[in-house]
Amino acid sequence: MAHTEDDRRPKYQRIAEALREAIQSGEYGPGDRLPGENDLMATYGVARMTARQALSVLRDEGVVEARKGAGVFVREFRPLRRRGIQRLARQQWGNGRSVWAADVEDRSLEVDHVTVSEEAASDHVSGVLELAGEETVCVRRRRFVLDGKPVLLATSYLPVSLVAGSPIVREDTGPGGTYARLAELGCKPVHFREEIRSRMPSKDEATQLSISAGTPVILICRTAFTDEGRPVEFNEMTLDAASYILEYDFDA
Amino acid sequence: MAHTEDDRRPKYQRIAEALREAIQSGEYGPGDRLPGENDLMATYGVARMTARQALSVLRDEGVVEARKGAGVFVREFRPLRRRGIQRLARQQWGNGRSVWAADVEDRSLEVDHVTVSEEAASDHVSGVLELAGEETVCVRRRRFVLDGKPVLLATSYLPVSLVAGSPIVREDTGPGGTYARLAELGCKPVHFREEIRSRMPSKDEATQLSISAGTPVILICRTAFTDEGRPVEFNEMTLDAASYILEYDFDA
Repeated sequence: MAHTEDDRRPKYQRIAEALREAIQSGEYGPGDRLPGENDLMATYGVARMTARQALSVLRDEGVVEARKGAGVFVREFRPLRRRGIQRLARQQWGNGRSVWAADVEDRSLEVDHVTVSEEAASDHVSGVLELAGEETVCVRRRRFVLDGKPVLLATSYLPVSLVAGSPIVREDTGPGGTYARLAELGCKPVHFREEIRSRMPSKDEATQLSISAGTPVILICRTAFTDEGRPVEFNEMTLDAASYILEYDFDA
Repeated sequence: MAHTEDDRRPKYQRIAEALREAIQSGEYGPGDRLPGENDLMATYGVARMTARQALSVLRDEGVVEARKGAGVFVREFRPLRRRGIQRLARQQWGNGRSVWAADVEDRSLEVDHVTVSEEAASDHVSGVLELAGEETVCVRRRRFVLDGKPVLLATSYLPVSLVAGSPIVREDTGPGGTYARLAELGCKPVHFREEIRSRMPSKDEATQLSISAGTPVILICRTAFTDEGRPVEFNEMTLDAASYILEYDFDA
């Protein structure tokens, strides 16, 4: 079935796939120069435009980068290593650091497009947060940009009955962020559940994360609980899959 | 950039994307009937073949299923919930159950294509397992099939110096599997590191997992350590992203 599907795809996509597999297998390593348009025209017997499109697919996916006058090179990519458990340690946000600061080390991570609003809860959010009746939620949306490239969209939902009047409803939640403020409100998050999925991005997600439609997104849904098991935050994250390694280190 | 990329795609792909988004947004729920070929021809002004191709993309992705004479319906999909931490608990394999039995509940999961071989270690595997010089590895490959659909490819690497002569080098490792046998060898795995990535599948992966090239795979690389911190197994898993939810539940 995969075969039939493949054969229907345009030539430039099949050439891009062959190059992608050569990169994944290590035939072309980080920093290596890929075959240029002329090489691809000769090897595959295609027009210059087709060769150019194949290379641009890989460029759009962030797999390769063009250097002016020098050719197209395999990107020396440093994905962000997101240590799922350690990054949420109380020492982290308890000492006034942000949770994501743990991921970033020496790199530049900026948060933009921050919005905070009060909204009606969807059935799903209402269920996860165990809200009563028509209770509304504080919705915090923001985007994380790493070294100039958007890598993550996050939307947090918190019960308005809990956070109204606190810095959590402001754009800047202060040192240690939302979790430090929840602790001050007597609702310290100590237990977390993360659910991970992956799928192709919607058009809107692809635009916001500057990824082409050929790169998947990873979805993480995190629920934060107090030590009494009360859910106090639900956070839906959409990650550019090409920019992340998720790590979970645990005893079992 | 995403916009330009989209516009280059064939019409049937754009129609498939519109339908996929309508499904993701809940406009069409599980079990709902999708617009048929005639509806799509009228709505998008396309030929029957284009409408048919659009629907077959979604069918190949496992998003919808065709019922003879009745139409095309949104699949009532039950992804496998893989509880990353609980499933590796000693009570699980220590009591002779397999690790994956924890994921499956009442569903049918079969393991096929099992092969066991002794191979030279790649630099990467050698590094992860901290092997000396030319030490070889026992390589266990297998495929997991859920309700008749392949969902996971797994390749485990273990030091031959540790497992030679044990049931770990046989196809059937016995009750509790590899981890129970490692414990008997004095190397009980108690600490785990899982690294998660997502990307598009290679052609070979798409074939083995019966997924179309439009569905991503999730990669999990797990290293198992003894309580002295010795790495005793490295397991590379490739999952059909449409078939899984990965869950991690932890205190922090």
